Amino acid sequence: MKALVLEKVSLLSLRQIELDERLGPRDVRIKIHTVGICGSDVEYYRHGRIGPFVVEQPMVVGHEASGTVIELGSQVKHLAVGDRVCMEPGVPDPHSMAARLGMYNLDPSVRFWATPPIHGCLRETVVHPEEFTFKLPNNVSFAEGAMIEPLAIGMHAATKAALAPGDLAVVLGAGTIGAVTTLAALAGGCSRVIVTDVKQSKLDLLAKLGPITPVNVGKERVADVVADMTGGWGADVVFECSGSPAAIAAVFEPLRPGGRVVLVGMPGGPSPLDIVAAQVKEACISTIFRYAHVFDRALALIGSGKIDVKPLITDKFAFEDSIRAFEWALDMPDSSVKAEIEMPV
Amino acid sequence: MKALVLEKVSLLSLRQIELDERLGPRDVRIKIHTVGICGSDVEYYRHGRIGPFVVEQPMVVGHEASGTVIELGSQVKHLAVGDRVCMEPGVPDPHSMAARLGMYNLDPSVRFWATPPIHGCLRETVVHPEEFTFKLPNNVSFAEGAMIEPLAIGMHAATKAALAPGDLAVVLGAGTIGAVTTLAALAGGCSRVIVTDVKQSKLDLLAKLGPITPVNVGKERVADVVADMTGGWGADVVFECSGSPAAIAAVFEPLRPGGRVVLVGMPGGPSPLDIVAAQVKEACISTIFRYAHVFDRALALIGSGKIDVKPLITDKFAFEDSIRAFEWALDMPDSSVKAEIEMPV
Amino acid sequence: MKALVLEKVSLLSLRQIELDERLGPRDVRIKIHTVGICGSDVEYYRHGRIGPFVVEQPMVVGHEASGTVIELGSQVKHLAVGDRVCMEPGVPDPHSMAARLGMYNLDPSVRFWATPPIHGCLRETVVHPEEFTFKLPNNVSFAEGAMIEPLAIGMHAATKAALAPGDLAVVLGAGTIGAVTTLAALAGGCSRVIVTDVKQSKLDLLAKLGPITPVNVGKERVADVVADMTGGWGADVVFECSGSPAAIAAVFEPLRPGGRVVLVGMPGGPSPLDIVAAQVKEACISTIFRYAHVFDRALALIGSGKIDVKPLITDKFAFEDSIRAFEWALDMPDSSVKAEIEMPV
Amino acid sequence: MKALVLEKVSLLSLRQIELDERLGPRDVRIKIHTVGICGSDVEYYRHGRIGPFVVEQPMVVGHEASGTVIELGSQVKHLAVGDRVCMEPGVPDPHSMAARLGMYNLDPSVRFWATPPIHGCLRETVVHPEEFTFKLPNNVSFAEGAMIEPLAIGMHAATKAALAPGDLAVVLGAGTIGAVTTLAALAGGCSRVIVTDVKQSKLDLLAKLGPITPVNVGKERVADVVADMTGGWGADVVFECSGSPAAIAAVFEPLRPGGRVVLVGMPGGPSPLDIVAAQVKEACISTIFRYAHVFDRALALIGSGKIDVKPLITDKFAFEDSIRAFEWALDMPDSSVKAEIEMPV
Repeated sequence: MKALVLEKVSLLSLRQIELDERLGPRDVRIKIHTVGICGSDVEYYRHGRIGPFVVEQPMVVGHEASGTVIELGSQVKHLAVGDRVCMEPGVPDPHSMAARLGMYNLDPSVRFWATPPIHGCLRETVVHPEEFTFKLPNNVSFAEGAMIEPLAIGMHAATKAALAPGDLAVVLGAGTIGAVTTLAALAGGCSRVIVTDVKQSKLDLLAKLGPITPVNVGKERVADVVADMTGGWGADVVFECSGSPAAIAAVFEPLRPGGRVVLVGMPGGPSPLDIVAAQVKEACISTIFRYAHVFDRALALIGSGKIDVKPLITDKFAFEDSIRAFEWALDMPDSSVKAEIEMPV
Repeated sequence: MKALVLEKVSLLSLRQIELDERLGPRDVRIKIHTVGICGSDVEYYRHGRIGPFVVEQPMVVGHEASGTVIELGSQVKHLAVGDRVCMEPGVPDPHSMAARLGMYNLDPSVRFWATPPIHGCLRETVVHPEEFTFKLPNNVSFAEGAMIEPLAIGMHAATKAALAPGDLAVVLGAGTIGAVTTLAALAGGCSRVIVTDVKQSKLDLLAKLGPITPVNVGKERVADVVADMTGGWGADVVFECSGSPAAIAAVFEPLRPGGRVVLVGMPGGPSPLDIVAAQVKEACISTIFRYAHVFDRALALIGSGKIDVKPLITDKFAFEDSIRAFEWALDMPDSSVKAEIEMPV
Repeated sequence: MKALVLEKVSLLSLRQIELDERLGPRDVRIKIHTVGICGSDVEYYRHGRIGPFVVEQPMVVGHEASGTVIELGSQVKHLAVGDRVCMEPGVPDPHSMAARLGMYNLDPSVRFWATPPIHGCLRETVVHPEEFTFKLPNNVSFAEGAMIEPLAIGMHAATKAALAPGDLAVVLGAGTIGAVTTLAALAGGCSRVIVTDVKQSKLDLLAKLGPITPVNVGKERVADVVADMTGGWGADVVFECSGSPAAIAAVFEPLRPGGRVVLVGMPGGPSPLDIVAAQVKEACISTIFRYAHVFDRALALIGSGKIDVKPLITDKFAFEDSIRAFEWALDMPDSSVKAEIEMPV
Repeated sequence: MKALVLEKVSLLSLRQIELDERLGPRDVRIKIHTVGICGSDVEYYRHGRIGPFVVEQPMVVGHEASGTVIELGSQVKHLAVGDRVCMEPGVPDPHSMAARLGMYNLDPSVRFWATPPIHGCLRETVVHPEEFTFKLPNNVSFAEGAMIEPLAIGMHAATKAALAPGDLAVVLGAGTIGAVTTLAALAGGCSRVIVTDVKQSKLDLLAKLGPITPVNVGKERVADVVADMTGGWGADVVFECSGSPAAIAAVFEPLRPGGRVVLVGMPGGPSPLDIVAAQVKEACISTIFRYAHVFDRALALIGSGKIDVKPLITDKFAFEDSIRAFEWALDMPDSSVKAEIEMPV
């Protein structure tokens, strides 16, 4: 089949590739419709590696996808041919200790699309377990379906935050992850989210999407804004989505006593944390790795109108133009959030 | 001052009353603007008692109120004369064990408006601690402010439910408490709420207020509806808001394995519960008593547009007509949810 | 192989039986050493059924077992031939929704030893998944190993109770389940457990096993004892282990405001619960079904000396005498807690 | 009255001091019996300050105390003259936001003994609120009573860790705080605690106090020891009690996926944390500041025999020798854990 293949660092080909795609009894075969471009795809293109994961042989890229079921394994129960679906890209070993405890995302043996050496999904069809394939509600488009994967990170962060109804949250960083975390936090119970960045265009886009207060941290301190809004008390939750050591160093400043922090962004190395500042507030700090058990929940929230990801889909490319799309993504404009590639019908 | 006084069972007077209203250092004096009529007010009018609480001497009724601050105690810090406010009607002993643990609503010595022998707030002015007086956001009306008290019950129920983003909830009973619980559950993270009742008009009103699925349990079983929607899995949370023994007996039927139940409605006596049905699902059952720590959160959610209580305010009366209002409330039409009384300017 | 077979209600045979015991790649074969007699085994013997589970064909009984590994499947990683082990008797479908969420005990398709039509383990050997087979620490005997299954219920109850260090707990019912719940609650953080029963001999046995206060509820009210001990405040946790409707009806009486109840005992039918009594204390009620993820923890606590189950093993029988053991168990004396059957060497 | 007064940095006097000690209605007057010497007392003596707290006028030292009630305020309910008691040294404003939420330890206006400018308790008598004065069980000595304050830190850490029965914990640092955290973690549900230090004498003392595995991190890596004990899985909880940046940098190494970390030790400045290492395990990190709601629980656990602090009381001094005691404490031998000063009878 035809696929976008990362041959090696900085070299993509749109070409035929032979893949072993036998259908197991619990699997479905899916014709791919839309694939989003993730920062990690671009990172493998640019550097050939992310941390310990190194591209050592040609690999199909892409892991944010929607499509249509075209074939069913013999034991498939809940899906039918023709179902419009999106797919969770990581498949764990159900017998691993982590999976048995309900934390399958922490299973080190998980096979995750477009994480070397596992092929991704920017290709004509994929075979995938029914368990990790989710039917799109009728009112959810393929374009939205391909957004579930990035949204899942925000959903998982909002879930770990143990939000109480009416919480005030701060989201540090207005990139894609900051944006989906903001939407998930609002849908998950926050009355308002204060989002920070130094890029005004990103803040301007987000500020239109709900009760969201943008703070340009190049111009003002977020801790001051929060103190003003709360009579000096602080925010209930801070989501760190920038990965920036400077943001992490100050992460407890806008927090209220007894507040919670979720570290979503992944910094490049060990990051100085002001532990005593955390202690005097008894901050509780959660960390997340990808997501678990949230694809159906993300779909339910989009289906019921409580989350709208359409404004985040800012750019579209045809499959034929996917190499150009990746080149464009190497230097994505600030006004773009998510680019998607559509397969030919 | 003038007040609506329940002289004894079935006898209300709108008359002058002498009240000791000295202003303590942490108190504010408030000119009352709007007071909602609660089922408990009507119950005292009708029967002169609720459980162990008996009206034995004339008592001012009303505990759902908004108004304007007109005088400040010497140590008041966060409020100013002219502030538009609503008030939490129960004032606990801060030195009680329950209050120290953060559960002030469970302090047996709490003084609660219009719970004998404590006077309520359907009168010209009240003196109230600053701690339990909350400034209304600019975009929140007095009418909405007087709705915070009933909404607080739904907020507390939604908080105790420990909702995760995207939960599917069932609310049993579409009366006032069912309605505010539905709104709080949606604001608190649910993707959809299934509401049940036998009164179609109540369901019709609620069905317009968001992603809400009405189920007339005179015509179909809610467990069947939920099973259809979830492929047989069940709802994440069931809020029991009817107090009906029949609803309580079947409360675990629509629930998923590992789901949560919140018992909000107060049945008249011991109620048969199917404990084995709970056990095979390991249901976790929370119960609530009034509310704690949610007035500011309810105001934040109304202020940011995530909850709209205005459609629930179906009837208005002038203070001069308050006796007539209570007579009307003795036999309130199904199409009414909340009636409010406005004080003269 | 030879096994104790329940042919039909009231008829046991100790006889040869043909069983399909092929070893899968993740399985181990175990030579059984000791099997405890559980009330449910006796119940199937006496009545031929428990709730929806009916003995319709000959079934090997027994599900509380320890033994020695004698053969390994090709993919077994953590066990070796000769390992002394105990076994968790329920094996779920790892692809079920409940199992994926980490609640494998709630999977309706779980296959559980000696629950019709699944054969139990009172026989020479069993084949069992490595995942559900646990190595005994060197200082834990086979007799103790066969106690892990009943102890697991107490462990699961204590886990669900979310005990805080120093909690005061009440355990209603001093039978086997009450006993193991008491030991688990003490190991899990309680400073003291108050145990109730009407049978003084059961209370006398338990009172020797730690900071345990026995209360004979035929002579005094447990709520009074707790009120005396806590200055009227109440116990942090109540474990209902009797299944008695009278105990369930009064379960909130000894509880403190904000306390937790765990319903462990299974009553015969719907049980009246005083919901308003729960609400004024905002009681949180957990329910449990068997157990999950606790066998290794139970073994760790026995291995480190924090739990001692040896005093609960009151009676021993040889495999040859197992029919007599079951007859004896039909009318077990109050002074007995757990009887075990030892296989021939 | 006579008191040990820190006149200024490095200058202590044992002298008469005039203190305003009027008895409020909710207060009791206590004759002091025993006072423990805390590292913070010694720190004020040595440096005249801890962080933002500076000794600017003569201050009585000491905050770990037990004694006997000698006078009651008019509204005291639960204490009597002659009661043997210990005291929680911090008194918050019950009207502060933090106190109302049940987190009184986070109230910035808390008045804490021997934290400038508040006088401590190393003197003949103190006046203290009944709320923060706890009756000693009959079998708990004054010496043990004065240990409740340091033990409370371990209790609070163990409570925040949300221990499940059978957890395996690691405690980094075997000083006083590490020791009390170890005892609290064992009483709170751990099956075993692995304690680390570089000082062998401290490890030797602790290793005798229960199922405790000492690890001298000068000789072996704790992550290796834990991996060996758990088949590579990791510990459920890590308590960081050293405050050492090196320990904090490696705090996630011995942790299992989904594990919890409690940061108890206070490092001198911002500390590098390996956030990605936390994320791949979804570590949840709690922090604590002093303690709340644990004095009664610590007493209950000592009273029931589940915690024994007596082996930690290694040194005793008479009040007359208290200046010498502080000089000794400036260079305390490794074999000492806690020194206490006894007042004259």
